[in-house]
Amino acid sequence: MNDPRTTRPELAHDVRIIDTTLRDGSHAMAHQFTEAQVRATVRALDRAGAEVIEVTHGDGLGGSSFNYGFSRTPELDLIAAARDEAERAKIAVLLVPGIGTADDLRRAHDAGAQMVRVATHSTEADVSPQHFGLANELGMETAGFLMMAHRTGPEELAKQARIMVDAGCQAPYVTDSAGALLMHEAKARFEALVAEVGDEAWVGYHGHQNLSLGVANSVLAYEAGVRYVDGSLCALGAGAGNSPTEVLAAVFDRLGVTTGLDVGGLVDAAEEVVRPYLPRWPKMDRNAIVQGWAGVYSSFLLHAERAADRYGVPAQDILRRCGELALVGGQEDMIIDVAVQLARESR
Amino acid sequence: MNDPRTTRPELAHDVRIIDTTLRDGSHAMAHQFTEAQVRATVRALDRAGAEVIEVTHGDGLGGSSFNYGFSRTPELDLIAAARDEAERAKIAVLLVPGIGTADDLRRAHDAGAQMVRVATHSTEADVSPQHFGLANELGMETAGFLMMAHRTGPEELAKQARIMVDAGCQAPYVTDSAGALLMHEAKARFEALVAEVGDEAWVGYHGHQNLSLGVANSVLAYEAGVRYVDGSLCALGAGAGNSPTEVLAAVFDRLGVTTGLDVGGLVDAAEEVVRPYLPRWPKMDRNAIVQGWAGVYSSFLLHAERAADRYGVPAQDILRRCGELALVGGQEDMIIDVAVQLARESR
Repeated sequence: MNDPRTTRPELAHDVRIIDTTLRDGSHAMAHQFTEAQVRATVRALDRAGAEVIEVTHGDGLGGSSFNYGFSRTPELDLIAAARDEAERAKIAVLLVPGIGTADDLRRAHDAGAQMVRVATHSTEADVSPQHFGLANELGMETAGFLMMAHRTGPEELAKQARIMVDAGCQAPYVTDSAGALLMHEAKARFEALVAEVGDEAWVGYHGHQNLSLGVANSVLAYEAGVRYVDGSLCALGAGAGNSPTEVLAAVFDRLGVTTGLDVGGLVDAAEEVVRPYLPRWPKMDRNAIVQGWAGVYSSFLLHAERAADRYGVPAQDILRRCGELALVGGQEDMIIDVAVQLARESR
Repeated sequence: MNDPRTTRPELAHDVRIIDTTLRDGSHAMAHQFTEAQVRATVRALDRAGAEVIEVTHGDGLGGSSFNYGFSRTPELDLIAAARDEAERAKIAVLLVPGIGTADDLRRAHDAGAQMVRVATHSTEADVSPQHFGLANELGMETAGFLMMAHRTGPEELAKQARIMVDAGCQAPYVTDSAGALLMHEAKARFEALVAEVGDEAWVGYHGHQNLSLGVANSVLAYEAGVRYVDGSLCALGAGAGNSPTEVLAAVFDRLGVTTGLDVGGLVDAAEEVVRPYLPRWPKMDRNAIVQGWAGVYSSFLLHAERAADRYGVPAQDILRRCGELALVGGQEDMIIDVAVQLARESR
């Protein structure tokens, strides 16, 4: 049997910013991206020096469904369009085992995806190995998301990262799905992962802005040895959005940390390409702050707001209860149950 | 001659959050606050445990003018209304020497102001002593803003803080008017001020979100011994806005640092009282990011956008030029000159 471990790619710059406007942003768009929007965004990002652009349904390959929300455009068409527009950038896809399958990954690869990010709950890395194995067979770059990382301590999170790396993952991520990690909590996780796998793999950080700490944690990540950092134009993403790619570029520029990104090009891309199609600018409103404060999965936001409308209970109460129940991604159907239960209690 | 130094007030909590929705927010409102808006905001903040609420024209007492923009409602009426609504909170005013006068301060005190924050450019603390002297005579609490603190190094900034404290200032501030301070730059300034005046005075931090670092810098501030931290509901303030008060409350709550603030009450106040009157949610858009990146005074934002419309040059180009020219608050009239010059150059 071959050693499944693969070598990590060379870094072109001090830090590699991975743009997820067209994947995490899919949540904020209620998965309604058009091919024209994807093409324009990829073109602008590519020209501004983006190295990797992620394009998938918000919940990953195969996410288009009743439970997660249907995509307006088939995601393989969006991936192919992105690949067609990108002259230098690589196209990545997200795969959540249980939502996406090996066949989905093969089709995404055929459509032009060059990298896959396999996402599991932060204690369930053991569902990822088959997908890393397939990605390696297909010659794709890999990364692994350990989601809801605030729920799992640094030592255990590092063990989960080890499982991924041993399975062929080039870059396990501290994935702060709820935007809940305070700076010292984020730092401890970055350091634990870098200590555990930093000789073989890159460590990544994916942040949300629910507590306004995505950019700050990105700086701490770099200082701790993290080399993959996620962002989205206009912060387009679940909850209060992601760390804005254009702000990350400006901050790393001021720090003298190279990213290969053109700050002027990115602020123009955010303003002229993404802003016009935003249904709403992601922001730290009540529900988003409560998500970060109570540690609730960011992509629950729109689901909770819809359930709030339907059952006449405040969305923030639904989100707080989801936090108390420690719900994780994949349990979106429980949000309705929570709303129904709260409506009963308030009678 | 009496020693002008006064004693600093006791702290009721680990950190004292000062809310400036109704002062820095005045910039974002183009100074159009109504008395009803001020009353409702003070009432909600007061109930949520706010200790100090600042109410003044964005540019301080006497700011209502052709140069800075006229207030819709006389600021003394707003101060009196705020004092009338506040059951526990103290009402503060801002005074920029050269814009506001000693007579303005007396009138504000008569209208109910219990605290004054005297603001100077970060190298010009020597214009503040007469105002601190008068405030002490009037029995008002005091703080001192060292504006555009990113332009002045930690050692020099601490010397300026020393001038203020020797004149009777209870709390000199690292005032990041441009939202330009990176975390290590902010930390160095906090530490320098605490080392210089920390035995006699509290040190404060006033942040803007142009680079998304206001909340993170507030945490670093607390860790460095800073005890006054500014925020605004919905981040309402110049540029990309201030550190959101409701997010500061949530983050300090998660850190176990007491503020006396009720997080639930503040997110409700932001959502139900402030959000409905927002002309636009302050955000990290192109111009705001460029301000943080290039280090431009936050309140120049709307001025630059108006000049951009009028002279047909991009606002971001005006702001970048303002940064190159190192313009400071009070030079708002130069923004027009910059726009005219850029229009000429582009012909």
